[in-house]
Amino acid sequence: MHRTKVKVVEEALDANNTIARANRDDFDRAGVTVVNLMSAPGAGKTRLLERALDGLAEQGVRVGVLEGDVQGSFDADRLALLHVPVVQLNTDGGFGGECHLDANMVRSALPALPLDEIDLLIIENVGNLVCPAEFRVGEDARIMVCSVTEGEDKPLKYPLMFRACELVLVNKIDLLPHLDFDVARLEANLDQVHPGVARMLTSARTGEGVEAFRAWLATLGTRERAVA
Amino acid sequence: MHRTKVKVVEEALDANNTIARANRDDFDRAGVTVVNLMSAPGAGKTRLLERALDGLAEQGVRVGVLEGDVQGSFDADRLALLHVPVVQLNTDGGFGGECHLDANMVRSALPALPLDEIDLLIIENVGNLVCPAEFRVGEDARIMVCSVTEGEDKPLKYPLMFRACELVLVNKIDLLPHLDFDVARLEANLDQVHPGVARMLTSARTGEGVEAFRAWLATLGTRERAVA
Repeated sequence: MHRTKVKVVEEALDANNTIARANRDDFDRAGVTVVNLMSAPGAGKTRLLERALDGLAEQGVRVGVLEGDVQGSFDADRLALLHVPVVQLNTDGGFGGECHLDANMVRSALPALPLDEIDLLIIENVGNLVCPAEFRVGEDARIMVCSVTEGEDKPLKYPLMFRACELVLVNKIDLLPHLDFDVARLEANLDQVHPGVARMLTSARTGEGVEAFRAWLATLGTRERAVA
Repeated sequence: MHRTKVKVVEEALDANNTIARANRDDFDRAGVTVVNLMSAPGAGKTRLLERALDGLAEQGVRVGVLEGDVQGSFDADRLALLHVPVVQLNTDGGFGGECHLDANMVRSALPALPLDEIDLLIIENVGNLVCPAEFRVGEDARIMVCSVTEGEDKPLKYPLMFRACELVLVNKIDLLPHLDFDVARLEANLDQVHPGVARMLTSARTGEGVEAFRAWLATLGTRERAVA
């Protein structure tokens, strides 16, 4: 009898990747481009979305949002005001709540999402700079939001997050005059862990840079149909 | 034969608590009071420590620091300049790095700590608003640092963290004039999840409130000897 030995490694991540691929297939069938939006707590993800999603419909991109939080629906309630479909996903089923979204959690939300009626799905992850980077959910692109109030050292301290993304939004730049923050130093740290990664300076409060971010999302959201 | 049924629940947390008690015993034997300092990434834990620890020796409190990070020793290097014993603990042994300290990680650092030569040990946890609250490490008190740049909603979105602490430091208040941040609203949210929890407004940058925080630490650090 022929015997094959299979090494069991990182089983949880393997299972996650299998489910992420199944999500990916469903997104492809529906022609939906998916963005995984990640940051530390309070970096301004939701406020950036409030600004950037407003106006995307006029550019022909129909958006949906999957809102990940440990508990509550504060952000989902805010985004629902934009009249886009929003689904809340809470991770507090475990002991104290999971600190990230995984592919299976996202999969459990798919039946509640009108995939055939949207072009772009934004998945707002749980605010955390460690674990979200380890779990693919079936997305096309990952965006990291880092706020200038967090300090220039974050790419060096949480490198996996900054390596695992296609775009870095440096947010809250309206506060730069009031901080000891060196944008050039942040960019150098960024290039050290992810050389040349695309980056934009934004302020969700003043709107600076939001148009460029909206255009980036619009390009992503229309890509699928351009290919088809 | 008499048979007893033992229900196996939350095994990982049970094991953690067992080790936390062993740590606690070691701290008690050495007469060391221990603080677990927690926050989101970039809330200002290290800078607050730089300010507050400077001057504690003059008040008769000998301090040591255990610095928890996913990787690197940026914060430990900063604190070593204060001429206090600092031990770096990196959590990146796992796939992408653990997002919190647990009792066993702290235990592994104990041999490197001069417990007999300090009165107060500060454990600076990994920047994260979810998992650190779930893992006791043998501490006497837990402190949550939240920055006013993170928004007033954080206690409602990450309630376990704000419930699991004895003191909340509301940091970066020097930025209040430049933010749409309502301190009263934060305090109301705080009272909703942890009624009456002690709180202090601080700015590690200007030094406002740091003296009160230092006094709080000094009281804690001399308690042990007062009892003995």
